Amino acid sequence: MTKTFNVAVLGATGAVGEQMLKTLERLDFPIASLKLLSSKRSAGKKIKFKGEEITVEEAKPESFEGIQLALFSAGGSISKALAPEAVKRGAVVVDNTSAFRMDEEVPLVVPEVNEHALQNHKGIIANPNCSTIQMVAALEPVRKEFGLKKLIVSTYQAVSGAGSEAVDEMYEQSRQIMDNEEIDPKVLPVSGDKKHYQIAFNAVPQIDVFTDNGFTFEEMKMINETKKIMEDSSINVAATCVRLPVETGHSESVYIEVEKDGLDVSRLQELMKDAPGITLQDDPSQQIYPLAADSKGKDDIFVGRIRQDLDEKKGFHLWIVSDNLLKGAALNSVQIAFSLVNTGLLK
Amino acid sequence: MTKTFNVAVLGATGAVGEQMLKTLERLDFPIASLKLLSSKRSAGKKIKFKGEEITVEEAKPESFEGIQLALFSAGGSISKALAPEAVKRGAVVVDNTSAFRMDEEVPLVVPEVNEHALQNHKGIIANPNCSTIQMVAALEPVRKEFGLKKLIVSTYQAVSGAGSEAVDEMYEQSRQIMDNEEIDPKVLPVSGDKKHYQIAFNAVPQIDVFTDNGFTFEEMKMINETKKIMEDSSINVAATCVRLPVETGHSESVYIEVEKDGLDVSRLQELMKDAPGITLQDDPSQQIYPLAADSKGKDDIFVGRIRQDLDEKKGFHLWIVSDNLLKGAALNSVQIAFSLVNTGLLK
Repeated sequence: MTKTFNVAVLGATGAVGEQMLKTLERLDFPIASLKLLSSKRSAGKKIKFKGEEITVEEAKPESFEGIQLALFSAGGSISKALAPEAVKRGAVVVDNTSAFRMDEEVPLVVPEVNEHALQNHKGIIANPNCSTIQMVAALEPVRKEFGLKKLIVSTYQAVSGAGSEAVDEMYEQSRQIMDNEEIDPKVLPVSGDKKHYQIAFNAVPQIDVFTDNGFTFEEMKMINETKKIMEDSSINVAATCVRLPVETGHSESVYIEVEKDGLDVSRLQELMKDAPGITLQDDPSQQIYPLAADSKGKDDIFVGRIRQDLDEKKGFHLWIVSDNLLKGAALNSVQIAFSLVNTGLLK
Repeated sequence: MTKTFNVAVLGATGAVGEQMLKTLERLDFPIASLKLLSSKRSAGKKIKFKGEEITVEEAKPESFEGIQLALFSAGGSISKALAPEAVKRGAVVVDNTSAFRMDEEVPLVVPEVNEHALQNHKGIIANPNCSTIQMVAALEPVRKEFGLKKLIVSTYQAVSGAGSEAVDEMYEQSRQIMDNEEIDPKVLPVSGDKKHYQIAFNAVPQIDVFTDNGFTFEEMKMINETKKIMEDSSINVAATCVRLPVETGHSESVYIEVEKDGLDVSRLQELMKDAPGITLQDDPSQQIYPLAADSKGKDDIFVGRIRQDLDEKKGFHLWIVSDNLLKGAALNSVQIAFSLVNTGLLK
């Protein structure tokens, strides 16, 4: 008989929480009992899981008594407060916020890239930022064989990454603009920041707040997390992160320079074909390339538009697309949970 | 008294033609007579210019008798057929199609960058591609003082660059998707290509058709035109061009590496402040950066998000935005016409 586990999902009523539950169900994670947790405001809601109705409870330190695996996705401050409480009570926490990602004691894991880092966990495992996950998973097979010297990414990110309020704002604004009505932006680009801008029929070069060096936190996450997950701080990484009027599906225009000779477009395509979790969609003659709208609801990372730089022999361009709520968040968290089970780390 | 000229506008009923007429009127170009030309299909339409109604005529070789300045924006094949006819009859042609841009005999001009190239014209002057113009105009002050070694751009391009049919398609699709109706893409990404894809709430990494090297023609235009306008074929240029659900206003995420030491963010900001046709919008602490939706109807090129690369001392990132129908097309053509007048080349 398969060993089963007592699981808690914190942030069960959010956009990522919803996808976590769907993914646990769909991939048939070995669950003995499931507890759904949220803020006080959402407690009392009822959510169906495998045909059974579960009432969402307010998350408290005591909620984690007897829990073996806790998936967190309820915001950084809640993770900071409750993850240590869950660990204290014997749970392993897979945290989908940025709270612990750069903590040296905390493994930051994309299973296809650095599953082995789980071995050093001390109770908390961090799930990387959505835009980082799809990029490192696609580039790891290249790095492993040819090394990565430099990486410059410009993102085309979907609004669902900013929560369901942002999705509602995008659709409401779209209607208002088409009906020549006034718009009143309140959520995007960053709900907690000072100013809000039109997202419908626009492109906004700000995701998360700005840091002192002129890069946004989202850009610094991509830069720092990439080096940590690939375990190579010598890779030069730069990012420009842009929010688009797309509901779900992050796209990335990525330029890389590899260390070693011998890579060409067909070898890069082969590497993508063989990589776990990657689907190659790359045939310009048939206008085949990844599209954000097609990625919604799919587990894979889609890669196309692969071409060699015209000047730099070791330079290549790629277009990388994935569902930011699945591989970018919920799916990767559940995959980490499976890795914990499969490597015997979850007891 | 100011000398005035007999002017013809070919493609007067198109999106760019409309902006050309508005710009000629607004900037008070010295016109003696104005002839509006189009395909047979649009001939007979009436268009107001400075309060006077002008009937659009079908463009024929004879249409250019007595014309001194002809602004062309009716598609490459029409330019190829009629520009030589206009020149034969004594007109100077400013052509906004790609027909002659890479012709060695034809100057490719952004007045702020290479007005001097007009001196060598043999009757035809080419207006560069929209996405190229805003980039080279912003980068020329940097190139002049610090040299340009490398340039990697990812674009965020508006649908009006593909014509008014594309704009209609975007809005119609947006409504259909929000109303859960079927969509039927027919125009974008490229009206003449085999397949058509959803543009509403999507990001499509194809503008113009593909070339054999995996880059699209739009990308190759940015690469080749940049070198020609800046008169330096040693600059390494790479481009990834992406169409977005934005009506008007192209945005560009640009990474540059300069040749010389000494450039920093504040110097780069100063260069932008002093540059003709450029407005610096760059204050992260106040969330000030250029936005496509704000650029519509404005003459200037807007530059922000300027920051130094974290690894490469001579590397910088910029976000460059401009109205693709104005500085990207109509305005630049009219500015070329003014340059011809001011330098005595239009007689």
